Amino acid sequence: MTTTTPKGFTAAGVAAGLKSTGAKDLALVVNHGPTFDSATVFTANRCKANPVLWSQEVVKDGTVKAVVLNSGGANCYTGPEGFQTTHAVAEQVAGGLGIGAIDVVVCSTGLIGLANDRDDLLAGVHAATAALSADGGLDAAEAIMTTDSVSKTVVVEGAGWSIGGMAKGAGMLAPALATMLVVITTDAVVPAAELDAALRASTRVSFDRLDSDGCMSTNDTVTVMASGASGITPTPEDFTAALTQACTDLAMQLLKDAEGADHEIAITTLHAASEDEAVEVSRSVARSNLFKAAVFGNDPNWGRVLASIGTTDAEFDPADLDVAMNGVWVCRQSTPAEDPATVDLTGREVSVTIDLKSGDARATVWTNDLTHAYVHENSAYSS
Amino acid sequence: MTTTTPKGFTAAGVAAGLKSTGAKDLALVVNHGPTFDSATVFTANRCKANPVLWSQEVVKDGTVKAVVLNSGGANCYTGPEGFQTTHAVAEQVAGGLGIGAIDVVVCSTGLIGLANDRDDLLAGVHAATAALSADGGLDAAEAIMTTDSVSKTVVVEGAGWSIGGMAKGAGMLAPALATMLVVITTDAVVPAAELDAALRASTRVSFDRLDSDGCMSTNDTVTVMASGASGITPTPEDFTAALTQACTDLAMQLLKDAEGADHEIAITTLHAASEDEAVEVSRSVARSNLFKAAVFGNDPNWGRVLASIGTTDAEFDPADLDVAMNGVWVCRQSTPAEDPATVDLTGREVSVTIDLKSGDARATVWTNDLTHAYVHENSAYSS
Repeated sequence: MTTTTPKGFTAAGVAAGLKSTGAKDLALVVNHGPTFDSATVFTANRCKANPVLWSQEVVKDGTVKAVVLNSGGANCYTGPEGFQTTHAVAEQVAGGLGIGAIDVVVCSTGLIGLANDRDDLLAGVHAATAALSADGGLDAAEAIMTTDSVSKTVVVEGAGWSIGGMAKGAGMLAPALATMLVVITTDAVVPAAELDAALRASTRVSFDRLDSDGCMSTNDTVTVMASGASGITPTPEDFTAALTQACTDLAMQLLKDAEGADHEIAITTLHAASEDEAVEVSRSVARSNLFKAAVFGNDPNWGRVLASIGTTDAEFDPADLDVAMNGVWVCRQSTPAEDPATVDLTGREVSVTIDLKSGDARATVWTNDLTHAYVHENSAYSS
Repeated sequence: MTTTTPKGFTAAGVAAGLKSTGAKDLALVVNHGPTFDSATVFTANRCKANPVLWSQEVVKDGTVKAVVLNSGGANCYTGPEGFQTTHAVAEQVAGGLGIGAIDVVVCSTGLIGLANDRDDLLAGVHAATAALSADGGLDAAEAIMTTDSVSKTVVVEGAGWSIGGMAKGAGMLAPALATMLVVITTDAVVPAAELDAALRASTRVSFDRLDSDGCMSTNDTVTVMASGASGITPTPEDFTAALTQACTDLAMQLLKDAEGADHEIAITTLHAASEDEAVEVSRSVARSNLFKAAVFGNDPNWGRVLASIGTTDAEFDPADLDVAMNGVWVCRQSTPAEDPATVDLTGREVSVTIDLKSGDARATVWTNDLTHAYVHENSAYSS
């Protein structure tokens, strides 16, 4: 199971007719308490979708009782009408559950500028409410898929409590969150402020380090709800560690299912002056189309790595950089070293290691290669 | 003709055996005076190739008498040996022409980390020096091609003086110069300081606004040499206007020959609070792989434009953005407007217009679409 593994939660996933394929497209996850603490992070994109604008208000008091999510349309830049649709969906959920709409987070995903049919949505919410069950987590995870090829779920067990989660996302995977919706549940007792700190600490080193294609979404939302149904209060350290494990697991599932990708690439920068600079350097390589295309071609083109590093403001000596690919140090002191021909890039997993020799900080950013399938999928998506 | 159209210049292009195809790969352009004023701009990449490190010293006194360029290897991150090769090439040119090596700009292009055979290079310089002629400009332009499908040259006529130029570049076309080498000549009388001001003004609105694939090169160099052979001193305004015309013409030639591109895309931001913010917004769209793939698919996906605008810090109201594609205002006040189905993207030239409604500044950034051919060419380049 998934979001319904922790005690105190029900979920459902139904077909509301939003996807032309007739597949499941509306999900509902409900917290039945006894506690309703929550924390949420949203996309850093300044152009935010209507459900994000709505949900930003919902989460302010730290209480969330339900999350409703639809695929088949992002409800972004659809005008005042679109915002009213989001509001109506929240009211419909609230009415069915006997709670307030202001405790309902709404998430949408799909094409920007496309408004879903409001009647279809409301009927879907009605059906999902009727279908809620303590083992509905997998249905919910399936209903939020768009170009995802598989549903993404996770469970992390604590001592007498657990964390469950689901995620969607395959393209527009970028900095400061990816094109993704994530719902995480726990039956641990965790006050909202502590949940918020744990969530920010977890996303900073998981979703925020994923940069599949450099494109930041308008709809990203990660919500965690704590039901307290286990009656157990873990230490903040234990809870944060488990939440980080859950977020990292889901982030790696997103990475592996990225649109058209042939390789998962981990870019690690060592000995940076600060963690921020390590992230900046790794991300600059993750954003290089030339480097990503080279990996697709199984070409250990370390020159493209150096060319990317040189665009950053990080502290390093351009004449003293080391670069390894899959453990082979192809460049030492900015000079050709071990033979690139010994680098085997035929496997899916590729590692790039950069040694800046400027400090003690390190960070890894994950990306994918740039492939024909990526171009194909994203040139045909909305037609 | 090209760099040899202005009076006072000779040029040559020869095959030195650096390219495995046997094509021309070494170019030489010489200023015979009577003046030797010059100006040069280099890549902003902190990881600079050996010829750039050498040439930065050469240009400091404003005097350049010759530019020698080779394709078939970038001589970047090739160690102390590589720098010595650059130095030896400059000395060989100087010896053949009876000038000082410190007046010889050296440019190289090709694979990073690849050292050319020094003997081949020096023999090529010898041959090029012997082949110098007043109509060698086209041979020189041909010798600097790498993945370029055509050579790029330009002539702009002034009143009794002229400007000639050549450029190479097809990939790694990015911010603050592209992967390109450019040599521009003029027989106007223009002091070095004035040349420098004119060149910086010209590149700021031409090469610097080209962002084909977001990747910044390690070798970019643009050198302009003024022979004064016409005896005519144009006004700074006239000269800067002509130089801007020459640079813009060459930049558009680079854009049209970008690796694998099917479309040239002009992204214009209107009513920005400042020109810098207009550039930032246009560039953010130029960097969106999702948007670029959509254009390849002839899909007027304006949602991807808005998602890119939202990643910038420019001044605008996210709820009041207008976006046009090929003149059709598909989004008004951040809401769907004219029917995207009426946007015809089948032609090579595509325009995107963004109205920020925040001021009086504007700027255009040019890019290309993301195509299967781009992925193919850049996944197979070094193998």
